[in-house]
Amino acid sequence: MVLPAAFGRYREALDAKLGSLLTSDLPAGSHPEELHRMLRYHLGWEDAEGRPVHSGGGKALRPTLCLLACETAGGDWRKALPAAAALELVHNFSLIHDDIQDRDPERRHRATVWSVWGEAQAINAGDALMALGGLAVLDLAAGGLSAARVLEAARALDRATLEIVEGQALDLSFEERLDVGEDAYLEMIEKKTGALFDCALRLGGIVGAADPAVADALGRCGRLLGVAFQMGDDMLGIWGAESRTGKPSGADIRNRKKSLPVVYVLARSEGATAAELRRIYSQPRLSDADVSMVLGALESVGARAYCRRAAEERRERALEELAGAALVERPARELQEVADFLLERDY
Amino acid sequence: MVLPAAFGRYREALDAKLGSLLTSDLPAGSHPEELHRMLRYHLGWEDAEGRPVHSGGGKALRPTLCLLACETAGGDWRKALPAAAALELVHNFSLIHDDIQDRDPERRHRATVWSVWGEAQAINAGDALMALGGLAVLDLAAGGLSAARVLEAARALDRATLEIVEGQALDLSFEERLDVGEDAYLEMIEKKTGALFDCALRLGGIVGAADPAVADALGRCGRLLGVAFQMGDDMLGIWGAESRTGKPSGADIRNRKKSLPVVYVLARSEGATAAELRRIYSQPRLSDADVSMVLGALESVGARAYCRRAAEERRERALEELAGAALVERPARELQEVADFLLERDY
Repeated sequence: MVLPAAFGRYREALDAKLGSLLTSDLPAGSHPEELHRMLRYHLGWEDAEGRPVHSGGGKALRPTLCLLACETAGGDWRKALPAAAALELVHNFSLIHDDIQDRDPERRHRATVWSVWGEAQAINAGDALMALGGLAVLDLAAGGLSAARVLEAARALDRATLEIVEGQALDLSFEERLDVGEDAYLEMIEKKTGALFDCALRLGGIVGAADPAVADALGRCGRLLGVAFQMGDDMLGIWGAESRTGKPSGADIRNRKKSLPVVYVLARSEGATAAELRRIYSQPRLSDADVSMVLGALESVGARAYCRRAAEERRERALEELAGAALVERPARELQEVADFLLERDY
Repeated sequence: MVLPAAFGRYREALDAKLGSLLTSDLPAGSHPEELHRMLRYHLGWEDAEGRPVHSGGGKALRPTLCLLACETAGGDWRKALPAAAALELVHNFSLIHDDIQDRDPERRHRATVWSVWGEAQAINAGDALMALGGLAVLDLAAGGLSAARVLEAARALDRATLEIVEGQALDLSFEERLDVGEDAYLEMIEKKTGALFDCALRLGGIVGAADPAVADALGRCGRLLGVAFQMGDDMLGIWGAESRTGKPSGADIRNRKKSLPVVYVLARSEGATAAELRRIYSQPRLSDADVSMVLGALESVGARAYCRRAAEERRERALEELAGAALVERPARELQEVADFLLERDY
């Protein structure tokens, strides 16, 4: 499926905003140069030696959702650029720290920050992005948004950041557990992924509409979309092609991730299969044979179809959240396109 | 020297504020319980099993400076409590991450968070405190401070947080260097320690006085005090008694910290002494004989007296910053007492 037009429309302005944030708050030539270099590397602007590259980072999904939500709420998306940039910075803070915690050597086909600069400096890189995100959202005041609304936006961002951290703490705690139920899994992804999607659409609503009910409806929509997106990501982690994910197929099984398909199969299996799965997931490391066995067990309980339905159900509820709100037609239609795009992936 | 009265005056209200922040934003019984437990442990409220203790955490120096600055500026210190709590949370974020980065097993005579819960979860604990600090400062609005002034306070806090991270990145980068000059050292401690002292007094000024010049003068005073305080801390790390610091005497030498005395002796030594120092500091680990040699070299160049003078000079300049501002006499005198207290330590 083709990237919806909204991604292209905002990209240049978003990159310019991110670039200016990283030069005004972290002026070129100021110390510590190494810290700035890690940030530019992680964002895909430079290689590890500081030479410019255009690896492009990610798709800037959360900023795009924020700017589109702003238009949907009747606002000028340019005024929401500081919020969009803040979301991208906070998202990238969490990626850098997650990579350290999960010991992932690669992200987006490049070495992770910790694997180039070491854990200690990578912790600093993530910390710096969180602080820069906090500064970025306060810049909404420069676009003429009232100080009270800027405070509301800052509060939403800090709350989302806290939820992300809570979600990550839950996710890590699941690694050693075999009794992770679907409720616990849902709580974890709602925090780890849903909260920042909620925040993305909510911030667009805060900038775009005076009525707080609009921002609330957008936020609820975003949270459900985020959960649906994470469920899709879980499916990619198991059934996605390596060329799409940058990780070997079945990688999340090998890493013993308690993602939705695995939570589902652990809960649904019985007898000898259940015992074998428990044995496999009690090991520190999984063999190729273990991975094959888990894939077979997933197949036999229909885990893929179950996850598809679970994600689809959230996508529908997400769009229903918008039904009652007074929204601008064209961007609202595009928001739906982006929602479709988020779930139309190869799994 | 006795703890100045200001510390006692604010303590109960500050602890209550911190307690309510950790229960309103992190409700009891909500997930993940482990994350909350790490925070309560680190703040000295519980032991590692979650049983209440009264180890008291630190002296709450930054909050005390903030509340005293608010009174000095003519304000009601109770209105600055959200800022004071935010400073303590941000300070403790940096301690938790520093302990991971420095591999310190103990702080304040207790096991560090990472040594109890592992690095991955300790990263989350620090991240959560940074986000909670961001939320806390926004609570200033509830005390009736105008939204515009709250934004100013939030910006000051985020900028200070970014500086702390920059300072930590510099400090880590110094470990492998033998050519750290005094200017580089001063830049590092100004960021790592001076910035949050600046922020502490500045936030008190923002809450306490309508005139931004008062907050600026207090901020400049705080920055110099922070630098002086860090110089004192550097001396404690080398010449302080273990009972005071919770670390063995000479610990900072053994850890190859490029603190002021070491930067000074590396710059001032010549000939055979200089060569021997460079050999010692090129090793990954220092022996007892190496530590003795460094202590002797520090003695022979008069490093202790030099550091004392450097700290004293900043303390004097800090107090001069306040000379021109219209301040309330009694708390201004107490602020001076606290400044004296910060430097009157056993080294």
